[in-house]
Amino acid sequence: MDHLVHRFRNNSRAIALGDPAWDKAREHHLIDLSIRVKGNDRLVLEDGFEFVNLSSCSYLGLHGHPAVLDGAIEAIRSERVLDVPISRVRMRLTQLDELEAEMEKLWRARCIGAATAGAATSGVLPLIASGHLAPDGKPPVMVFDKYCHFSMNLIKPICGDETEVLTAPHNDMNFVEDACKKYPRVAYVADGVYSLGGAAPVKELMELQDRYGLFLYFDDSHSLSIHGERGEGYVRSLMGEELSPLTVIVVSLCKGFGGSGAVIMLGSRKHEDTVIRWGGPLAWSQKLSTPAMGADLASVRIHQSPELGELQRKMRSNLALFDSRIPTESAGDPFTIRLVVVGHEDAASEVSGEIFRRGFYTSPVFFPIVERGKAGLRVMIRADNNPEDVIRFCETVEELTSVYRTAEVAV
Amino acid sequence: MDHLVHRFRNNSRAIALGDPAWDKAREHHLIDLSIRVKGNDRLVLEDGFEFVNLSSCSYLGLHGHPAVLDGAIEAIRSERVLDVPISRVRMRLTQLDELEAEMEKLWRARCIGAATAGAATSGVLPLIASGHLAPDGKPPVMVFDKYCHFSMNLIKPICGDETEVLTAPHNDMNFVEDACKKYPRVAYVADGVYSLGGAAPVKELMELQDRYGLFLYFDDSHSLSIHGERGEGYVRSLMGEELSPLTVIVVSLCKGFGGSGAVIMLGSRKHEDTVIRWGGPLAWSQKLSTPAMGADLASVRIHQSPELGELQRKMRSNLALFDSRIPTESAGDPFTIRLVVVGHEDAASEVSGEIFRRGFYTSPVFFPIVERGKAGLRVMIRADNNPEDVIRFCETVEELTSVYRTAEVAV
Repeated sequence: MDHLVHRFRNNSRAIALGDPAWDKAREHHLIDLSIRVKGNDRLVLEDGFEFVNLSSCSYLGLHGHPAVLDGAIEAIRSERVLDVPISRVRMRLTQLDELEAEMEKLWRARCIGAATAGAATSGVLPLIASGHLAPDGKPPVMVFDKYCHFSMNLIKPICGDETEVLTAPHNDMNFVEDACKKYPRVAYVADGVYSLGGAAPVKELMELQDRYGLFLYFDDSHSLSIHGERGEGYVRSLMGEELSPLTVIVVSLCKGFGGSGAVIMLGSRKHEDTVIRWGGPLAWSQKLSTPAMGADLASVRIHQSPELGELQRKMRSNLALFDSRIPTESAGDPFTIRLVVVGHEDAASEVSGEIFRRGFYTSPVFFPIVERGKAGLRVMIRADNNPEDVIRFCETVEELTSVYRTAEVAV
Repeated sequence: MDHLVHRFRNNSRAIALGDPAWDKAREHHLIDLSIRVKGNDRLVLEDGFEFVNLSSCSYLGLHGHPAVLDGAIEAIRSERVLDVPISRVRMRLTQLDELEAEMEKLWRARCIGAATAGAATSGVLPLIASGHLAPDGKPPVMVFDKYCHFSMNLIKPICGDETEVLTAPHNDMNFVEDACKKYPRVAYVADGVYSLGGAAPVKELMELQDRYGLFLYFDDSHSLSIHGERGEGYVRSLMGEELSPLTVIVVSLCKGFGGSGAVIMLGSRKHEDTVIRWGGPLAWSQKLSTPAMGADLASVRIHQSPELGELQRKMRSNLALFDSRIPTESAGDPFTIRLVVVGHEDAASEVSGEIFRRGFYTSPVFFPIVERGKAGLRVMIRADNNPEDVIRFCETVEELTSVYRTAEVAV
């Protein structure tokens, strides 16, 4: 038995290491917050304390856009049901066809809706593992990037019950190429833009795809809507007119896009039936509800209009403001996420707690979200941040991280 | 490598066996239907063909209830956001506290909301596997019922990377008791009411819990709302005032309940932080959206009123009507699901196709949904079926299944 467990995960180890940092974050009143929305990026606690949320994934502020809210309401009114709870394989509301067709035109890929990106991932990855989305139908060796999001790592043991699964050092193209040379079929699994900043080397991966037939799976949730002329996201924007049938991109619609649910982008209709029939939760679980589809269709309309570009520019302008003040590893990249490294987990919560008392929420992040000893503040810049707030926030971060660094030197 | 794959699953085998039946169902126009809702249980295809849907999980018809739809709309209006996309560990809308508190009173258990029952399952089962919800924190041997829903079976390899996982024959209490005698800690995983009819022997399982400390995990989605004075579902209704800290019940809110999302019922607050921090998608994925919470709260109000009992009675009256005409294994039980066994997969689709042409949709079910050679029609009776439709439907089923049986005898 022993050799069969902890090949991919170990709750006991992760929880023993991670829980003290969560407890520390709670001491600093940084978790378990019950909030109401005051408008745009402003939230308010039950005791009336108001703050700017700099850890939201609603990068373009679209979750509060009047057209998105009206879209959800109108869909409920016109469909007169919240949901039709039956497998999507069997039947679906015509509304879903309309939504998927619009997304298909927008992003030039076959788009299949799902309840969440996690559901999409848990449906698609096992089919890649067993070779059912490959041209020859044979299982590849799967290579997961070490920094893959939790939603992909969770599925590793499932993939590991269909084929061999390896973990590559982060963005290590030599590792991936070596695997391509060693094994006849390889599938690479990665984030497009990582949830703590930085991106996959997509162009290099496309070269490996050309050279070796490498299958590519990306979760590109963090760059959808904020990147590309039509908000198609970082990975899709680099892949030309047609998406390769060897590529699958999953994106959440609940981040920059401002809606609900998720979409699976396929390069070919060939495997569409397989994904819908055999893609786990896609076949048997909840799908997009009526209000979700209404909101998503309204956001598609915004994506088809010049407003998308305006929002992207506002987001980038706020990002430039942040980058001009606070140095981070991702400074200068066009994405929204910056990780301000503080160091020890306790310090991250202390600094984040003091920043919060001054009116700005940033998530302290620590193991297993980041490696041990690299705890810090996860900052996410939005289109609807007030630039004056961004400046005040940067001043606060500058002051408090320098205090902390001085204190650390003194110790 | 070979001994490490296909311990729990085998896509190649499942798809090769199952796909021909899906293809046959498509030939009979029984899948991939694009529909609009005409009212209650009536749907309409794009070409105008109208039919009664007898394969919907909206058992009480609540997904179209005006109060539920208004609840969703009002929540969007009052919260003015569709979502606040940040981890629930960090912050949540106050609206969620209100919803969970009402459910807690209704169902007398700590209730934690989740985006889907599948997400809840994939979050909770690995924590049970590693012993993190057990009193002594040690991993149990996990025993899955053979007929567990796909959503639990999907997670087997993940549990299998934390502990030993066994599969028990369906409802085999001797197998479970033997495991309790053999291993110091056992956790049993089952449906409360199975998705193809029938229920778990909950009382016997509770006796094993008393005797051996057996941990119990149920997905009781199919009986929520339709069963129990407060719609608490079959399993919860048998468990007295207090839910044992050794029991976890997951329920979808997207079936009889008439809303969106899911709830995890815990017997104790002790493990609440662990579930929220370490429960996979509960910590990092989408949660209940604003309209979902509004709809769910409206349905809770219906559950607090005499209307729930009225709807349950209507459902049971329709069910009795069906049972008086069509013999099935589950006839007489108080749940909504009946499996009319036809036999060969092709015959199931043929009969179902002809029934559909006469105006009634029933899902043909076949491997891997049921065992091979036991294909049939999955019928789900609802509160909002018109009793005259139920009678006409029974007559149609009687006629067509007898034609088929005669034809089979003749061959």
